Amino acid sequence: MKLATYHDRSRDGQLVVVSRDLSQAHYANGIATRLQQVLDDWGFLSPQLEELSISLNQGKLRHAFNFEPKQCMAPLPRAYQWADGSAYLNHMELLSKARGAELPESYGLDPLMYQGGSDDFLGACEPARFASEAMGIDFEAKLAVITGDVPMGASPDQALDGVRLAVLANDWSLRTLIPAELAKGFGFLQSKPATAFSPVAVTPDELGAAWRGGRVDLSLQSMWNGRKVGQCEAGPEMAFHFGQLIAHLARTRNVRAGSIVGSGSVSNKDWSHGYSCIAEKRAIEAIEGGVAKTEYMKFGDSIRIEMKGRDGLSVFGAIDQDVVALHEATVDGTV
Amino acid sequence: MKLATYHDRSRDGQLVVVSRDLSQAHYANGIATRLQQVLDDWGFLSPQLEELSISLNQGKLRHAFNFEPKQCMAPLPRAYQWADGSAYLNHMELLSKARGAELPESYGLDPLMYQGGSDDFLGACEPARFASEAMGIDFEAKLAVITGDVPMGASPDQALDGVRLAVLANDWSLRTLIPAELAKGFGFLQSKPATAFSPVAVTPDELGAAWRGGRVDLSLQSMWNGRKVGQCEAGPEMAFHFGQLIAHLARTRNVRAGSIVGSGSVSNKDWSHGYSCIAEKRAIEAIEGGVAKTEYMKFGDSIRIEMKGRDGLSVFGAIDQDVVALHEATVDGTV
Repeated sequence: MKLATYHDRSRDGQLVVVSRDLSQAHYANGIATRLQQVLDDWGFLSPQLEELSISLNQGKLRHAFNFEPKQCMAPLPRAYQWADGSAYLNHMELLSKARGAELPESYGLDPLMYQGGSDDFLGACEPARFASEAMGIDFEAKLAVITGDVPMGASPDQALDGVRLAVLANDWSLRTLIPAELAKGFGFLQSKPATAFSPVAVTPDELGAAWRGGRVDLSLQSMWNGRKVGQCEAGPEMAFHFGQLIAHLARTRNVRAGSIVGSGSVSNKDWSHGYSCIAEKRAIEAIEGGVAKTEYMKFGDSIRIEMKGRDGLSVFGAIDQDVVALHEATVDGTV
Repeated sequence: MKLATYHDRSRDGQLVVVSRDLSQAHYANGIATRLQQVLDDWGFLSPQLEELSISLNQGKLRHAFNFEPKQCMAPLPRAYQWADGSAYLNHMELLSKARGAELPESYGLDPLMYQGGSDDFLGACEPARFASEAMGIDFEAKLAVITGDVPMGASPDQALDGVRLAVLANDWSLRTLIPAELAKGFGFLQSKPATAFSPVAVTPDELGAAWRGGRVDLSLQSMWNGRKVGQCEAGPEMAFHFGQLIAHLARTRNVRAGSIVGSGSVSNKDWSHGYSCIAEKRAIEAIEGGVAKTEYMKFGDSIRIEMKGRDGLSVFGAIDQDVVALHEATVDGTV
């Protein structure tokens, strides 16, 4: 099934079930109002949502309405955890080179993962607001899963059983702030502002045969200002599958329902697939010609991130965001 | 007022109001069931809780009951954010020396802060469970505040106005895992397991004159296996006050209601105050005699962390935890 969260001026929004083709939706009222509620009590609530979803797909629901991605908050507008792995080694290799940093010794053996902020996520079509272009505004297109409860010490297989939903993420990064923060050793903080998520979260069965070995074997498209800059394969080069990433996080603590675990920027060794973040493009330019020419994003730029299934249909709906100056936001009073 | 969250087998527990002397409590039913709810709607709900608190302190509530810290979950059993600053420079100096790491260039000018996991907190008297003593089990006694909404770009003064509640925290650390994680550059993850919080969260006015300039000017006591090992002054040496720490976090993103922001381990340059984490004691031993002699915690050890007000009464109640092997936890089925 496919789930989304509609804006209703509350902090957690209203849960809706969305049809497979993303054309129709129906409120989940009477079952659950918020997605976190469903994750907290998955065994009891998800079969009820599943039934609603079947009826919606069969066109049997009288109160169904046209699905509007612009009405969406992030599926979880705020979460108890957001941790992002860096599972595509090509991304790590390129960005380490670009920063002049050495690759960690455990590179390739042990997932590299950071704890992100999860109190203020962005809906798929909400503008991303930044104080200054000088911060090096960059998108990062990734996959993520939302988990149920996974106990401390779970194996990768057990952890994989804890996957409830999959989403796309745009993990905004402020490149100019990263080197100083990483040098301090305590990880990203200011350099990782609010993350955006796809309109729709889907259960793994919606991915069909493309959900394989804890990976999503489809390609992720990134369009920057309307121009396709990336069509990266998400399956084959994901060095750690989602069960491994979750188990890494659960090694010393329980991972509780509603935790979001990311894949890192989807990246392929074959550069002809393009890129899922500008930093990679710049690293490639530097490697090829000595100079990173492509500039980071400017106010007014747009980024669209989408993944299509083997049937050619959009799986999660598109993340489609504009980059906006923070002071503009203040003027229109929407911050 | 003083607030706590009682276990009721739900994930978020039941909100109770606690008397100033921590002897009596009363359910907040009819006003709010969960603390996050209050933080989401502070202006409307907190005055109602305040009234209940006044009646409780006056002994006027017929359904008041004896307050039992052992019934407490963390005031927020799970939160949308937990970020910990390192505001006591002495702690940073000692631990950097002990790790053989250089102090960041921005040391003393810019807060050092990490994003922590917030999906699974421990109540004040809940055992802390670890897979192995070899991980270097250490307590870290700190203060923290719980915020309301603080917009991106808020000044330290504006951010300080966003402080709603103060708590004590025991930010468990696995010292053996830290060097490798910090070397990877992405910050703490496995090395910072579930954090515990004091039974009670208090509004700043409960601190009286001790709440000054965004700091808590009281001393924090740590008792390890019944022996006092620290009585550290929390006020004078906090290099960044809570408004500065929150503003640091809010530089590039909105900080939303229910975010918990920590002070770092309370630490004094005058070593006669003792220590708020074993790593400091070991660093001092290494500096003084070349060898760190004090071992980290063992299964069966206990740690008690408490802060008394100028009236001699416990402000937050005590964090009082036992260190327990994970497999024991599995046997008694309470994980």
